[in-house]
Amino acid sequence: MKNFLYPVICLLILPGLTMSENTVRQHNLMPIPQIVEFSYGRFIIDRDFTIELTGACGNRSERVATRLLRRLSGRTGYFIDQGFVELEQTINDPKLRISCKRTGKLDLGEDESYILNVSIHNITIKAPTELGVLHAIETLLQLFETDGKEYYFPVVKIEDAPRFPWRGLMLDVCRHFLPVEVIKRNIDAMAAVKLNVLHLHLSEDQGFRVESKIYPQLHLQGSDGDYFTQVQMQEIIAYASERGIRVIPEFDMPGHATAWFVGHPELSSNDTTYSIERGWGVKDPVMNPIRESTFDFLDQFIGEMAGLFPDAYFHIGGDENNGVHWGKNPDIQKYMEQQGYENTHQLQSYFTDRVRQIVEGHGKIMIGWDEIFDPGMNKNIISQVWSREGMKQLPQILAQDFQVIISNGYYIDLFWSTEAHYLKDPAREDFVDDVALEKNILGGEVPSWAEFNTPEVIDARIWPRTAALAERFWSAKEIRDVDDMYRRLDHVSYTLEELGIQHIRNYEMMLRRLTNNADIQALKTLADLVEPIEDYKRHRFDPDRKYLSYSPLTRLVDVVQSDALEARKFRQMTSTYLVEIKKFDQYKGRKRSSRIKQFKNSTCRLDLVQQMKSWQENNAELQAVMGDSPILNEIKPIATDLQQAAEIGLAAVKYIESGKTASVSWTNDQLSILENALEPKAELELRILPAVEELVRIAGNRPRETEAE
Amino acid sequence: MKNFLYPVICLLILPGLTMSENTVRQHNLMPIPQIVEFSYGRFIIDRDFTIELTGACGNRSERVATRLLRRLSGRTGYFIDQGFVELEQTINDPKLRISCKRTGKLDLGEDESYILNVSIHNITIKAPTELGVLHAIETLLQLFETDGKEYYFPVVKIEDAPRFPWRGLMLDVCRHFLPVEVIKRNIDAMAAVKLNVLHLHLSEDQGFRVESKIYPQLHLQGSDGDYFTQVQMQEIIAYASERGIRVIPEFDMPGHATAWFVGHPELSSNDTTYSIERGWGVKDPVMNPIRESTFDFLDQFIGEMAGLFPDAYFHIGGDENNGVHWGKNPDIQKYMEQQGYENTHQLQSYFTDRVRQIVEGHGKIMIGWDEIFDPGMNKNIISQVWSREGMKQLPQILAQDFQVIISNGYYIDLFWSTEAHYLKDPAREDFVDDVALEKNILGGEVPSWAEFNTPEVIDARIWPRTAALAERFWSAKEIRDVDDMYRRLDHVSYTLEELGIQHIRNYEMMLRRLTNNADIQALKTLADLVEPIEDYKRHRFDPDRKYLSYSPLTRLVDVVQSDALEARKFRQMTSTYLVEIKKFDQYKGRKRSSRIKQFKNSTCRLDLVQQMKSWQENNAELQAVMGDSPILNEIKPIATDLQQAAEIGLAAVKYIESGKTASVSWTNDQLSILENALEPKAELELRILPAVEELVRIAGNRPRETEAE
Repeated sequence: MKNFLYPVICLLILPGLTMSENTVRQHNLMPIPQIVEFSYGRFIIDRDFTIELTGACGNRSERVATRLLRRLSGRTGYFIDQGFVELEQTINDPKLRISCKRTGKLDLGEDESYILNVSIHNITIKAPTELGVLHAIETLLQLFETDGKEYYFPVVKIEDAPRFPWRGLMLDVCRHFLPVEVIKRNIDAMAAVKLNVLHLHLSEDQGFRVESKIYPQLHLQGSDGDYFTQVQMQEIIAYASERGIRVIPEFDMPGHATAWFVGHPELSSNDTTYSIERGWGVKDPVMNPIRESTFDFLDQFIGEMAGLFPDAYFHIGGDENNGVHWGKNPDIQKYMEQQGYENTHQLQSYFTDRVRQIVEGHGKIMIGWDEIFDPGMNKNIISQVWSREGMKQLPQILAQDFQVIISNGYYIDLFWSTEAHYLKDPAREDFVDDVALEKNILGGEVPSWAEFNTPEVIDARIWPRTAALAERFWSAKEIRDVDDMYRRLDHVSYTLEELGIQHIRNYEMMLRRLTNNADIQALKTLADLVEPIEDYKRHRFDPDRKYLSYSPLTRLVDVVQSDALEARKFRQMTSTYLVEIKKFDQYKGRKRSSRIKQFKNSTCRLDLVQQMKSWQENNAELQAVMGDSPILNEIKPIATDLQQAAEIGLAAVKYIESGKTASVSWTNDQLSILENALEPKAELELRILPAVEELVRIAGNRPRETEAE
Repeated sequence: MKNFLYPVICLLILPGLTMSENTVRQHNLMPIPQIVEFSYGRFIIDRDFTIELTGACGNRSERVATRLLRRLSGRTGYFIDQGFVELEQTINDPKLRISCKRTGKLDLGEDESYILNVSIHNITIKAPTELGVLHAIETLLQLFETDGKEYYFPVVKIEDAPRFPWRGLMLDVCRHFLPVEVIKRNIDAMAAVKLNVLHLHLSEDQGFRVESKIYPQLHLQGSDGDYFTQVQMQEIIAYASERGIRVIPEFDMPGHATAWFVGHPELSSNDTTYSIERGWGVKDPVMNPIRESTFDFLDQFIGEMAGLFPDAYFHIGGDENNGVHWGKNPDIQKYMEQQGYENTHQLQSYFTDRVRQIVEGHGKIMIGWDEIFDPGMNKNIISQVWSREGMKQLPQILAQDFQVIISNGYYIDLFWSTEAHYLKDPAREDFVDDVALEKNILGGEVPSWAEFNTPEVIDARIWPRTAALAERFWSAKEIRDVDDMYRRLDHVSYTLEELGIQHIRNYEMMLRRLTNNADIQALKTLADLVEPIEDYKRHRFDPDRKYLSYSPLTRLVDVVQSDALEARKFRQMTSTYLVEIKKFDQYKGRKRSSRIKQFKNSTCRLDLVQQMKSWQENNAELQAVMGDSPILNEIKPIATDLQQAAEIGLAAVKYIESGKTASVSWTNDQLSILENALEPKAELELRILPAVEELVRIAGNRPRETEAE
C-alpha cells in the first residue's frame, strides 16, 4: 500500500525523477488528459488561495469550488481565508478563476471538456459546461504536490475531453445491499477519476432494492428490509448529479427476478410461492411473457421508476434466462408453438420488444445486457456487451448501427489484476476491425457483482483498480504503459482515502479481527503476497463450503486484494536481478567471480535476498499468530509454501551466483515443490511463486519455453 | 492501539491470567454487570450455533438475534447454518434460547434487566423486555473469547440491570454537521456499551440542522444545506429504537440561536439581519422574550417537532445567554423594569417557563441545561447539570425534588484522559451528601461538542473513552479500578471496529495524509506519545490561528487521541522501574552493585531503557519525514523535546543505577529543560515528560513534595 519506486534499473538511481520540471515531467494524473504541457515553475499554494466564478457557472460550481477549498485546506493544514465560493462574489485578483459558458445538462454526450492553465501566479479553468469544471477541479487536485517544503501545482497547460461519453461503474446492490453512504463515497471516488455513469443493479433473485409505492410488496417482501426508499434514491441521484454523474437504474427481467415473485408470484412462469434466494448462480424463476397482466404490471412499475430516475436511459437486464421454467410451463410451450418460436431466445426477444415499447412509452431509451440483441430488433436500444457470445456478435451489432457499451473484460469482481483489465480496450482490435464503427461504442462500464461484497470490503473490491479502467474509458487508446499506470495508481489509491474510501484502512482492521487483535505484522507479511483466486472459482473451490448471501466475508481471502503489490514488487526485483546477472555471462573464471562478488553488494541483489530471508524469519511469528485458530487454519499451508519458496529461492540464487548449473534432480524437486505450492489454498494464490520458479529455472538452466510473466 | 498487559509487576509473569477459569476470572465486560459468576468450562461456538426466540419477544429481537449470528460468523469465519432468526421458528435443541415476558416500551425507566446463563451445552437469555435482550446479547458478544484453538463463551451466570435509567451521549451536529451514517454507527457503538439515550443538539449559532416544514427558512437559510430531512430523522429514530436507544431533540434557546435568525430575524432581540456564525464562543444574538409572536412561533415549531420526535422528553437548551442583546434593546429593558426583574436571569426564567408551558402543551416533559434552574420553577422539568454553578446548586436542586441528569465531568470534547472522566460519579460525594437524594439523579450524559469534530475524527473523539463512562452510568458505584478499566477499554475499543467505528483505522490514514503518503512509522512513534491540550485551550493557543467552522482539522493535534496509550505505558514502566530500584536501597557497597548488575538484565529495566533508546534512534527518520513540511513544521520542537527527554532519561537511569546522587546543577539543568518541554506546542502535550522528570528527581534525590502522577 505504500509509495515505492519500482527498482526498474538496478544500481542506477534516477536523479530528481519526481522533481524534474519539464514537459515530460512525471505526474500522478489518472486518467491522463488528452494534452498536457508542463513548463518550468510552480504555483505555490498558501492561505490566501482564492476562487472566483465567472461566466454562466451555476450552483454546482459554487459547491465543487468550496469543496476544493476544503480539500486543499485539509491537505495543507492552511487556514485558508475564503470559506465559501459564491457566484456573486467578486474577488480581487483571484488565484483561481473558473468560467463556464453554460451550466450544461447531465445528458449523454454533453460537452465535458475543459482547459486548465496553471501559471506561477494564477490558475484558470475554462469549460463550456459545469461538467468540465468538475473534471478540471479533480485534475487540479491530482496535480497537487509537495517537495517537503511547500505545497504547489506545477505550471502546466491541459486541454482535455473524454474519448468516450459513457464511462460507468455498475454497483450490484442486490446480492449484498449497500447503504446510501457506501454509494455516496463511491460516487465521490468515481468523480475523482472522471467516471460519469452510476448504473445501479436494483433487482435480483436475492433482493429487490428500491421502494415501489405502487407495488410495495416488491420491496417489503423482497428485500429483508434492505432497500432504498424513493427519498433516499432521490438523495443519491442528487448527490451524483452534483458530481456530474448520471444514475441509470436496472431492473433485471425476465430472469434474475426471484425477489419480485416473493410479493408477486403472479408475475412468474411457475404457479408456486417464492422466497428470497440465498444461494448464488443462475436460477430458474422467470417472468411470464404470455400473460398480458405481466406487461400491465411492468407498464405501471416502469412508469413509476421512469419518474423516479430522471436519466433518459433505463436498463432492463435481460441476461442469463436459462429458459427452464418456460420449458416446464405447458401454456408457455403452447404459446411458443403457436408463434412458431423455435427456442426460448425468440420468446425472450418478444418479451424484450414488449418491454422496449413500455420503456419508450415512458420516454426512456432501453438498455439491456447483450442477450437482448436480436438482429431484427428496433435500433433505438443499447446493448451492454458482457459475454463471450456478445463479443463475437459485436462486429455484426456495430455494423448494423446498434449502439453498445462494453463491459466484457471489465468485471471488477473477477479478482483480476489491474493490468489484465487495463490492457483491454473497449474497441479492441480482435473484435472491432473497422475503426469507423468505433463511433457506435458509447464507452465502457465496470460491473461490480456482489456475491463477495459487503459494505466493509466493497471499496477494496472496486478501488483502486477501477481508476485504471476510468483511464481506459477517458484517455487516448495509446496510453498503455503498465508500469507507469501502476505507479500513478498507487498515488490515486492514496488520494481516494480523502473521499472516505475504506480500501486501505479496512485492510489492517480486518487483519486485526483475524488475529483477535493480536499483533498483525507477521500475518500482514503473508497477506501482502497473496491474491484471491480469479474468475468465479471461489464458488467451486471447496465442496464443503457453499457460499450463501449470509456467509461470512471476513476470512483472509476477503481481506486481501487482487493486486498483491508486495508480490508484484518481488517479481520485478527478481526480473531485474536476472537481467543484471545475465550480464556476467560474458565473463568467465576469476573475472566472473570477482564481478559477481562485487554485484553481491548491489542493492538489487541484497534487496532480493533480504526479502526472501525476511519471509523465512517471519515464519516463527506467523506460526505463533496462526496457532490453531479456526479462522486462520486454512492458510497454514500457504505459510509453509512461503517458507519453502523463500528457502528454494535463496538456494537458487546461490546456484546462479556460483556459476554452476544446479543438478537436474535438485531442479526437478524444487519445481515440483513449487508446482504444489501453485495449487491455490484457502481460495488464495501465493503470487511470488512465478518469480521463485524463474530463479530455479535459471539455476537449473531450464528456461521457460514461452516467457509468460 | 494494541493489546498489551501493563507490566505492573516487574519480573513476575502472572501465569494464565487471561485463561484461568474461576469466579474472579479476568474478562472484557464493559460495563461490568451487577452480578457475574464464572464457573469452570466453556460453551464452544461452532457452525451449528442456533437461536430460538420464545415468550413474548418481538421483531426487534428477531433482528438483533440475526445480527448476533452475523457478528459471530464474521469473527469466527464459520458458515453458521442458521441464516435468520424468526419468531415462529422452532429449533430443535437450540444453542441459545431467548425469552422475553413482553416487548417493553422505549420509555425512561422501562425494565432493562436480563439474566444470561452460559453453560457448556447451551445459553439462555431471560429478560422482562426486549431491552434486556438487547443488552444481554451485547454482553454475550463481549464474553466471546478464543484461546487460539477454538472460539467460546466461558461458563457464566450474569444478572444485570443498570444503576441509572438515563445513560446518554449528546452529539452536537451543529458546529460541524454529522451525516446520517455517522449517527448510525455511533448508535451501534452506544448499544454495544448499553447507553440508551441519544441527545441530538440540533440548533446553534453555527447551524440549524433539522428540516421544518412549517418554517422551512430555518433549515434552508440556517444550515449551508447540511441538515437532516424529517425522513432522515425518522430513519435515525427507528435505527436507535431498534437498538433500545431513545432520541431526545434539543433546540437551543433563547441563546445559541443565531442560525434561527438567518431565516427568521423577527425572533431575535436585535432588529438586524443575521448570517450563519462561523466563529466559536458565546455570542450575543438571543430570542426576543417580550414579543408574543416569539412564543406563537415556538408553539408552532415545537408542535411540529413534538410530532417528529416520539420521546416524552424535549430539550430546550437554555445555556449561556450572555444577556448582551437584551441589555441593548430598550423595549426589553423597559419590560424588565415593568416586571421588576433585576437581572437577565429572571427574564430568562420567565422565557423558560413560557416555553415549558408550550412544551407541556404538546405533551412533552422539558429538559434544559442547568441555567434554566430557578428554585421557584415548576417541578416537572429536568435540569441537565453541566456547569460549576450548576454543581454548586445541585444539593439544593435535589433537595427540592427536581430531577437531574449529570453532564459535569463528562464533556468528552475537553480532551481529558479516560481516567479523569471515569472517576467522577454522577452522585459524587462532594456534591451529593445525602444518599437518599440520589434517586433524583436520573443518570448521566456525555456531551460531545463539535468545534473540533468532523465525520473523519468524531469517532476517535468519542470512543473508546465514552465506553468507560457508559460503565460509570450502568455499573455499581464501587467499580473504580482504573488499571482494569484501561485493560478492558483496550479490548472494547477493538470490538467497536466491527460496528464500523473509525477511531483506530482513521489514525494511520490521517498520518498518511500528513506525510503525503510517505512511510508513517517515525511520525507515528511521536504521535503515539502526544495528546491534545485539554479543556478549550486550543481556541486560545495561537493568537494568529483563529478557528472557524471551516478551518482544517487535519493537523497532528486532530489525529492524536486523549489517551496516548504508549505514553501511559511508559509512565507505568517508569513507576515500576522506580519501585523495583528502590528495593536496592537496603543494600550497600558491592552487595548493592552486584544486585543492580543483575537487575540491569531484567525485563522492566531493559524495556525502559530500550524504549528511550528507540526514541533517540527514531529521531533521524522523523526529521527526514518532517523535512520543512508546512503542516508538520509546528511539531518539530516536540520532536526535539522527545529527543532531549530520552537523553535525559537515559542519563538519569545511569545516575540512579550508579548509586551516586546527580549533582544539583545537573539536576537543575535537566529539570529546567523538561519544564520548557512541558510547555505545550502545536496544541499538543508530550505525555512522557512527567515520567522522565520523575527519573531526574530520583537521580538528583529531589522527590516531588506531593506526588501528582
